[in-house]
Amino acid sequence: MLEQNHVTELAKLIGDAGVLTAPADLEAYQNGARYDRGRAAAVLRPRTTDQVSAVMAYCVRQGIPLVPQSGNTGLVSGSTPDNTGRQVVLSLDRMNEVFRLDEDNRSLTASAGWRLSDVNNKLEANGLFFPIDLGADPRLGGMIATNTGGSRFLKYGDVRKNTLGLKVVLADEDGTVLNLNNELRKNNTGVDWKQIFIGTSGAFGIVTECVLNVEPLPQQISTAYLVPKSDEHVMTLLRAMEKRFGSELSAFEGMSANAITAAIQHVPSLRNPFEQGIVPSFVILAEVTRSWEPRQGEQTLDAALEGALAEIWEMEGEPLADAFVGPPHEMWSLRHALSEGVSHSGKLIAFDLAFRRGDVMKFLSKIRSDLALCCPDLTICDFGHIGDGGVHLNLVLPKNSKQASDPDFEKQLRDFVFSIVVDEFGGSYSAEHAIGRKNQTYYDLYTPQKLREMTKDMRERFSPGDLGAVRFG
Amino acid sequence: MLEQNHVTELAKLIGDAGVLTAPADLEAYQNGARYDRGRAAAVLRPRTTDQVSAVMAYCVRQGIPLVPQSGNTGLVSGSTPDNTGRQVVLSLDRMNEVFRLDEDNRSLTASAGWRLSDVNNKLEANGLFFPIDLGADPRLGGMIATNTGGSRFLKYGDVRKNTLGLKVVLADEDGTVLNLNNELRKNNTGVDWKQIFIGTSGAFGIVTECVLNVEPLPQQISTAYLVPKSDEHVMTLLRAMEKRFGSELSAFEGMSANAITAAIQHVPSLRNPFEQGIVPSFVILAEVTRSWEPRQGEQTLDAALEGALAEIWEMEGEPLADAFVGPPHEMWSLRHALSEGVSHSGKLIAFDLAFRRGDVMKFLSKIRSDLALCCPDLTICDFGHIGDGGVHLNLVLPKNSKQASDPDFEKQLRDFVFSIVVDEFGGSYSAEHAIGRKNQTYYDLYTPQKLREMTKDMRERFSPGDLGAVRFG
Repeated sequence: MLEQNHVTELAKLIGDAGVLTAPADLEAYQNGARYDRGRAAAVLRPRTTDQVSAVMAYCVRQGIPLVPQSGNTGLVSGSTPDNTGRQVVLSLDRMNEVFRLDEDNRSLTASAGWRLSDVNNKLEANGLFFPIDLGADPRLGGMIATNTGGSRFLKYGDVRKNTLGLKVVLADEDGTVLNLNNELRKNNTGVDWKQIFIGTSGAFGIVTECVLNVEPLPQQISTAYLVPKSDEHVMTLLRAMEKRFGSELSAFEGMSANAITAAIQHVPSLRNPFEQGIVPSFVILAEVTRSWEPRQGEQTLDAALEGALAEIWEMEGEPLADAFVGPPHEMWSLRHALSEGVSHSGKLIAFDLAFRRGDVMKFLSKIRSDLALCCPDLTICDFGHIGDGGVHLNLVLPKNSKQASDPDFEKQLRDFVFSIVVDEFGGSYSAEHAIGRKNQTYYDLYTPQKLREMTKDMRERFSPGDLGAVRFG
Repeated sequence: MLEQNHVTELAKLIGDAGVLTAPADLEAYQNGARYDRGRAAAVLRPRTTDQVSAVMAYCVRQGIPLVPQSGNTGLVSGSTPDNTGRQVVLSLDRMNEVFRLDEDNRSLTASAGWRLSDVNNKLEANGLFFPIDLGADPRLGGMIATNTGGSRFLKYGDVRKNTLGLKVVLADEDGTVLNLNNELRKNNTGVDWKQIFIGTSGAFGIVTECVLNVEPLPQQISTAYLVPKSDEHVMTLLRAMEKRFGSELSAFEGMSANAITAAIQHVPSLRNPFEQGIVPSFVILAEVTRSWEPRQGEQTLDAALEGALAEIWEMEGEPLADAFVGPPHEMWSLRHALSEGVSHSGKLIAFDLAFRRGDVMKFLSKIRSDLALCCPDLTICDFGHIGDGGVHLNLVLPKNSKQASDPDFEKQLRDFVFSIVVDEFGGSYSAEHAIGRKNQTYYDLYTPQKLREMTKDMRERFSPGDLGAVRFG
């Protein structure tokens, strides 16, 4: 528990309602979306950048450790307190003072506490959206701190590519506010400091406000399931689709039979869309979109997709075993249910990996055979974003298996998988979840010493307070 | 001149042919594309990252100041030596060892000395290009150091958005090589250090290699000139075009009558495309592109553009005074000739500015009336990238005017224009040319003190050698 004198002083800065200390009130803030159970000394809920600054200055001077928390939907223990009971959660959940759309500039200036769904609901009236398409519903600050990508990365890029500016509070004794870069799309006048705060899990400062690029909402959407003849044909299909659709191609997602089957079994509303209910070993969800209403005389997008699939069907090497266009909502429902389905099918050990695109299927093939040898009880329920090299590798153990209750097994498995990902494939052990306590070990292991030193040094000089769940040291 | 013992030692590292000292050999390296005449103590021309590292270590230890130079096409004195004769130019012009296209990944790994035109010529066979569209023909290292944008920023973004990885040599006593981020599109495992070297004019380290996102080449291109009824209608037109074309809209460039007239007068091959030769006061070049061959049954892009213009013509408020579709090559020829035309029409004082998009025309209106009062001899030949808020504000004085020969006038004018740009509009005094000696003063003036301190501090700690034409201090 936070000492009473601190509670009193902090309440002077952000009001009594801004400081939570009752155990029941802390509950939601100390438990993570999926994995974490920590203990918070208190929860602080500022409303404005000035309040974050005041709270930060106080906590840094008093040596109170802060963990910034946004939507708390992360999966790597980046936004929850540890078990010491010493850390104070600084929640962004009341930070919604600013919401300013500039339609001419196609930019949105918003407080960091806005939820993605609320942002998009508000933008919809203007035919716009923030084009990061996620299963979860995070708040903006956390999306920036993790640099999320999502399912339409292929067309729109990640949060970094869609961030024009940030307001950040440093963890120093003044609670220094950095106002970075405003609403300009072009501005090359020195170091682009906002980049340091994107994807670094809130350890360099707390994002309180952001300026985002917003995009015209898709007005035409068509989707198809493509079944590649074999793993080797997946890249042929991606390249064939990119050639035919260019920037109209907005998603190219891979789904393994195990992930699909888990979803169909555990999410009753889903229909099995495959012939005779036989799930192919690997299925690609391809989406093409246009942000305009159909033009007079224009071929429909469905027809364009049908036409392209007919061409690809005839390509040399016949890369397709099957392909069909279907209703986007239904096709995405299956894709979006994979995560839930997988998490219900046993004890889940989840990895968020990235590769060069051409390595995705090679890695999957390798890991399948390696794991079959060492851990025959594991079911591999992978899915991911082939279009950008992302792989959500989900390994599932039967709940009653010996390995599921062995505390060392998960660590050994992570060490093993990551060594293949990083050492053999030059891949990433955290594609879009950033660093939290969960992968602190791997940050320490895989980050070149020089970069760790530079990072630690910068952290200590500009933002020396005890901020964030992760140690960049 | 560089002392002979240094010449001897450096030649041991990069060969005799790698060290130039004869005055005639230095000429091309000490004069800038448009403005500069400096004096180099020598020119070093390494071939590989290891050679850059060796040269860097030697020069830092010996206290020899280095100015990295790439294509030397910049306009802000960022790549040429000053007049002291002490600075040594480190040229990237022999750095072409690596050129590795990964078609599956749609990425190119290349040495920093490749020219943009050579990169695109080589990629063309694969139907790909590096989508930064510039009038000049820089080398990759300089494009990264300035974070250039160009004419198709609206669709593809700037160099930063298309850079997956970098190899950089720091200005320290070891010539430390940082190998940053490889070929992954997603990788959130700590600070994204490569961002520090993008757009910072080579002062933090020398980029020796890069991994770039490459895009499918446009296969269909249509262009139109749009004449807005008034300045107030320019944003209406941009928004109407974005609504109708989304990611097919690849350029939305503004051209003033003065710039067009200068181009037509000074570039004999150009045809005056306007009715009766009367140049409208402001003309927009809009381009739409598709990266695929026309699909069977698909409406042509010209027809789609004609249809959209017909709709826009009828819009409430009738925003168009005139509009016509024309041959892309011819329409772009005029656009690309503006810079040359303007530079031949008198003494040129050029600004590279950026604004929120909605402020572009407001700024132009304000600066026209302000300058008409204070400097009636100035002709304003502006053009720019309305779609991303960029303005190339070119002010031209008659060559024989008093102000053209007054050394203080240019400085006073810059001070005046930038105060309006930055203080009144929150704009940028360097949109895509980055910082060189030419705008060092404005970096010092307009960068918040805290950011200057952070920048200086980082520079001194990680890359303390005397590197770059600009002082981030």
